[in-house]
Amino acid sequence: MTATALQRTLTRELAHFEGQTVKLQGFLHARRDLGGVQFLVLRDVSGIAQCVGSGLELPLSESSVEVVGSVKAHPKAPGGYEVQVQSFRIISAATAPTPVEIPKMDWHVNPETMLDYRVVSVRGLKERAALKVQAELVAAFRDHLMTEGFTEISTPKIVSAGAEGGANLFPIDYFGQPAYLAQSPQLYKQIMVGVFERVFEVAPVYRAEEHATSRHLNEYLSLDVEMGFIEDEEDVMALENRLLAAIMTRLRERCETEFSLLGASIPDVPAHIPRITLLDARQLVGEKYGHPVGGKDLDPEAERLLCQHYAETEGSDFVFVTKYPRAARPFYAHPDEGDLTRGFDLLFRGIEITSGGQRIHDHAMLMESIAAYKLNPETLTGYTEVFKYGMPPHGGFAIGAERLTAKLLGISNVRYARAFPRDRHRLTP
Amino acid sequence: MTATALQRTLTRELAHFEGQTVKLQGFLHARRDLGGVQFLVLRDVSGIAQCVGSGLELPLSESSVEVVGSVKAHPKAPGGYEVQVQSFRIISAATAPTPVEIPKMDWHVNPETMLDYRVVSVRGLKERAALKVQAELVAAFRDHLMTEGFTEISTPKIVSAGAEGGANLFPIDYFGQPAYLAQSPQLYKQIMVGVFERVFEVAPVYRAEEHATSRHLNEYLSLDVEMGFIEDEEDVMALENRLLAAIMTRLRERCETEFSLLGASIPDVPAHIPRITLLDARQLVGEKYGHPVGGKDLDPEAERLLCQHYAETEGSDFVFVTKYPRAARPFYAHPDEGDLTRGFDLLFRGIEITSGGQRIHDHAMLMESIAAYKLNPETLTGYTEVFKYGMPPHGGFAIGAERLTAKLLGISNVRYARAFPRDRHRLTP
Repeated sequence: MTATALQRTLTRELAHFEGQTVKLQGFLHARRDLGGVQFLVLRDVSGIAQCVGSGLELPLSESSVEVVGSVKAHPKAPGGYEVQVQSFRIISAATAPTPVEIPKMDWHVNPETMLDYRVVSVRGLKERAALKVQAELVAAFRDHLMTEGFTEISTPKIVSAGAEGGANLFPIDYFGQPAYLAQSPQLYKQIMVGVFERVFEVAPVYRAEEHATSRHLNEYLSLDVEMGFIEDEEDVMALENRLLAAIMTRLRERCETEFSLLGASIPDVPAHIPRITLLDARQLVGEKYGHPVGGKDLDPEAERLLCQHYAETEGSDFVFVTKYPRAARPFYAHPDEGDLTRGFDLLFRGIEITSGGQRIHDHAMLMESIAAYKLNPETLTGYTEVFKYGMPPHGGFAIGAERLTAKLLGISNVRYARAFPRDRHRLTP
Repeated sequence: MTATALQRTLTRELAHFEGQTVKLQGFLHARRDLGGVQFLVLRDVSGIAQCVGSGLELPLSESSVEVVGSVKAHPKAPGGYEVQVQSFRIISAATAPTPVEIPKMDWHVNPETMLDYRVVSVRGLKERAALKVQAELVAAFRDHLMTEGFTEISTPKIVSAGAEGGANLFPIDYFGQPAYLAQSPQLYKQIMVGVFERVFEVAPVYRAEEHATSRHLNEYLSLDVEMGFIEDEEDVMALENRLLAAIMTRLRERCETEFSLLGASIPDVPAHIPRITLLDARQLVGEKYGHPVGGKDLDPEAERLLCQHYAETEGSDFVFVTKYPRAARPFYAHPDEGDLTRGFDLLFRGIEITSGGQRIHDHAMLMESIAAYKLNPETLTGYTEVFKYGMPPHGGFAIGAERLTAKLLGISNVRYARAFPRDRHRLTP
């Protein structure tokens, strides 16, 4: 059989071709020369394969190459098989050594350098594993919501005003008019509840936050959900519970290799994620862990301790913190008893991954809330207009895709869960 | 059975409940009072249902309501069944009459008014049908590509420079640094071919074009594809051919109602979409239709005539126009013989819906092309860097989701195929 007539085989399929001749294509991930015997590692979309040959004119690492050879079992090779090279072809030669050594990279080494050279460092096995997991996570998010009758929407990212006031907005020059990058599709997804009842959107959102922390991005992928005709926020939390279970099921089916590569485990999602009110949560971390509680929200340490408590006592990596006070929520949060709202957060392994809740759907209640928040209703007419037209009770939530990905995989900095992150100082590549 | 114990039924399911009592929830789409007999039309996500009652205190149109009643066959009612109201409940009352009459709207009436009041006009049956078709189209796009081994990516929309020079960019103030909204994920999807070999992205892109035509949007949803290890642009066209077939199959399965409502038909996708080179296409419209040909591309009338030709002679609503000259393509288009490139357009029912082609993957060839285009290589280092690292032969294309949706449904203005369009003068809602 000639090489040209051979179909391409993926590296992960080698076990099915023992003793046969295969054609591999991919990138020259690594190369070694041991006294005339050449070991090359070929990387394709499915994994890596060790190939052995001699007398080959090997190009620089990261060149695109084609190997034709026979498959032999070899216990020490990745995947248990290696390819004995019969012919070798350079498809596209690299013309410079890579600025970072792709096979030797580690997230804990020189993170800024790795981001500077992201156009090629993103090819690293761990780097791409994170992005692959995110792609599957997002696909599971969509697929599950569609099975529950949700419709996907696409809403503007160029807006005339912020959904929650004017802070942290990136200004745009829109044909000479002032405009901003959307911080959230909040208003638009609510409007679309009037159209499709249940909607979701997967799209970038923008936060012009000056701080550079390991858990914030200035541009991130927001997984947004909004659901009409609900009873209260319990319906929304139950939906998110089912959704997370579906996501983890898909990751278990499709991303075992990636989790294994990163030494991470896929969490079990309880059939009923535990709930605790914010007030009780603050009391718990105060009494059990002696962590001082104050302010209107949980601080990062309190989030961590609360998750520790639920991991230890209920074996759950997730906990809903419910009934946030109005002071900690935007004006459109649906009020509950006293000064509380029907807003909730979802914590996962020590960090908040979702903010959600029931929203105000009644126009009069909304106008009262705007007054109570001492906001100017005239600046909010773009938001309030739709509530004159019979909006049903509704609620929703948003998940930051990168933050969830990073936390799932134990990646310490959320920037590595985005292909080309934007931060305070980083606008390229 | 009490109303509260009843599960909600969707309007499209009424046929399964003849003679039974059902609970419907939705919006009061329309109401009429004929001598004490009240007809109300309830709209939910699945369609509309006629309900008949008397003595009901009906709220304003668009209120969220609940109807409990018995299902009777009725040939004149939408769907062939009506509900005889036993109890009626207002879930959320509209507090103002709608500024446009939702059931009577038509795209040919007052388009600007309809867009001004988009927060509620988008609830119209035809309006939402277009957005529903688009959601299914996008889902089919993703699902098909995943079956062919493509991975979804998310790339920055805040960029430091335009992919194709500095024209038509919206400027952003990025922490005091100049930045722009991305016109295309072109560079990023090419970089990601080095990671996943085959990638796609569904995300907004931005064109600061001053003109306001019926076929342009300043923000639109771009369906982007890039594919590595190809032979030439034929592989890319063959992929798009299969992809379009998959999209139309899904629309046929899921959107029959929407196409019927809009009086539109779902096209057959030929197993092999006809191809014609640009030069031959210009000659053809010149000779067959007497349409003067000039310039470097086809003008809108030439596109229309070429599609007419293929519809008449081959029964195809699609045609690939291939081998565009370099003058009509960006510097990264892969050269072909003479001054031609391996770039193509796909025309559908008279309009271009895709631009695509093979890209240059060889660094030296890219630098030559930049020189030939008289561009400054120093301003393009952000683009050219990755081509030092063994990029395989690759190509791809982009489909404008709104334009394809509009053309499929016979919608005359692309703005109605977007929930909240942005144009030269429109920044709200």
